[in-house]
Amino acid sequence: MGELSRRSGVSVPSIKYYLREGMLPAGERTGPNQADYGEDHVRRLRLVRALLDVGGLSVAAAKEVLAAVDGEVSLYEALGAAQDALVSVPEGAEDEASSTARARVDDLVARRGWSVTEENPGRRAAADVLAAYTRLGWPQFGEAIDDYAEAMEQLARREVESVLASGSDDGRERAVEGAVTGTVLGGSLLLALRVMAQADASARLLGEDGTDKSAADR
Amino acid sequence: MGELSRRSGVSVPSIKYYLREGMLPAGERTGPNQADYGEDHVRRLRLVRALLDVGGLSVAAAKEVLAAVDGEVSLYEALGAAQDALVSVPEGAEDEASSTARARVDDLVARRGWSVTEENPGRRAAADVLAAYTRLGWPQFGEAIDDYAEAMEQLARREVESVLASGSDDGRERAVEGAVTGTVLGGSLLLALRVMAQADASARLLGEDGTDKSAADR
Repeated sequence: MGELSRRSGVSVPSIKYYLREGMLPAGERTGPNQADYGEDHVRRLRLVRALLDVGGLSVAAAKEVLAAVDGEVSLYEALGAAQDALVSVPEGAEDEASSTARARVDDLVARRGWSVTEENPGRRAAADVLAAYTRLGWPQFGEAIDDYAEAMEQLARREVESVLASGSDDGRERAVEGAVTGTVLGGSLLLALRVMAQADASARLLGEDGTDKSAADR
Repeated sequence: MGELSRRSGVSVPSIKYYLREGMLPAGERTGPNQADYGEDHVRRLRLVRALLDVGGLSVAAAKEVLAAVDGEVSLYEALGAAQDALVSVPEGAEDEASSTARARVDDLVARRGWSVTEENPGRRAAADVLAAYTRLGWPQFGEAIDDYAEAMEQLARREVESVLASGSDDGRERAVEGAVTGTVLGGSLLLALRVMAQADASARLLGEDGTDKSAADR
């Protein structure tokens, strides 16, 4: 285990934790206090750390994703598990704002002709944002939803094509690993680029002194 | 406090926690075990819950954002605080994959002419994703970075314009509240729509039986 730690850069206590949680398969026992770990273990540890540290998944969400990688599920189901792991939907009370918001999301899905199940967590997560905008007194922010949907539709098709193309010659497990990696880490890449693009837009529109330069343009 | 809990739908233990953490200002004392909470408190509680539950921020990140709302910082600085709260960058060892990835992000920023500081956490977060792709054996996923950047650039300008336009008549604090709300919750809305758009793309390209339909098109 010490050698696995050296080769992967992951600490021994962390490796023990992932073994206990079933995120890393046990090594092959070679003695009472000795087990053999191979290249597969090093690769799996890298995947676990990428999902947690770079993808920002909770341990519970990462376990769901890894279960899909290890399970006998189809590539379609594994992609679905990775997509679902990206949104967490807390339990919340239903009120007028949330039912109106849910109807607006259903309407958007129908308008775009998206093939999305009733249970897709994205529906509820999107409705939660619209309802929060309304409750906080900023309903106009919800008007951007069509711009967001358009942008995500264009990217999603290319993302899914890319993860499918990359895994087609390497067998099911490697293909599923790629699909899961691209889906989860792609979300982090998108948010990282949004942070930079927003910083750029703020600098252009406001300037570092905080003056609203967009007002001057009007 | 019982009445504040009823009006806001937030439990008394949670209210006490937010008071202790300085996320909610103290009420006006009216007796030894009595304090008065006004409409401002109800609104602040809604904002706290939206940042945590809908925005998915950690308590630490939400505190940074609220400090910007309450502080004497400019709208530009408050927007920056909200943007930065959206990415967490864990400490990680520098290796060849990470320095190559950092150079690719610097190159992207230069190519797009983005006005982004050296310290912007989006730089490091984007580089971490590219480095993870390389370490996991999927460097080709990083090729989508220009598509992502293009989409985020278009959205970010509209997002920042929208939060600036909405707050211009309501004074600094309300404007900052709006900027922070739109920035943080907008990220959640984007990811929720990505989940649905990806589910749609998976269904179109793979079908629920897991057959790769894109292969048939080729």
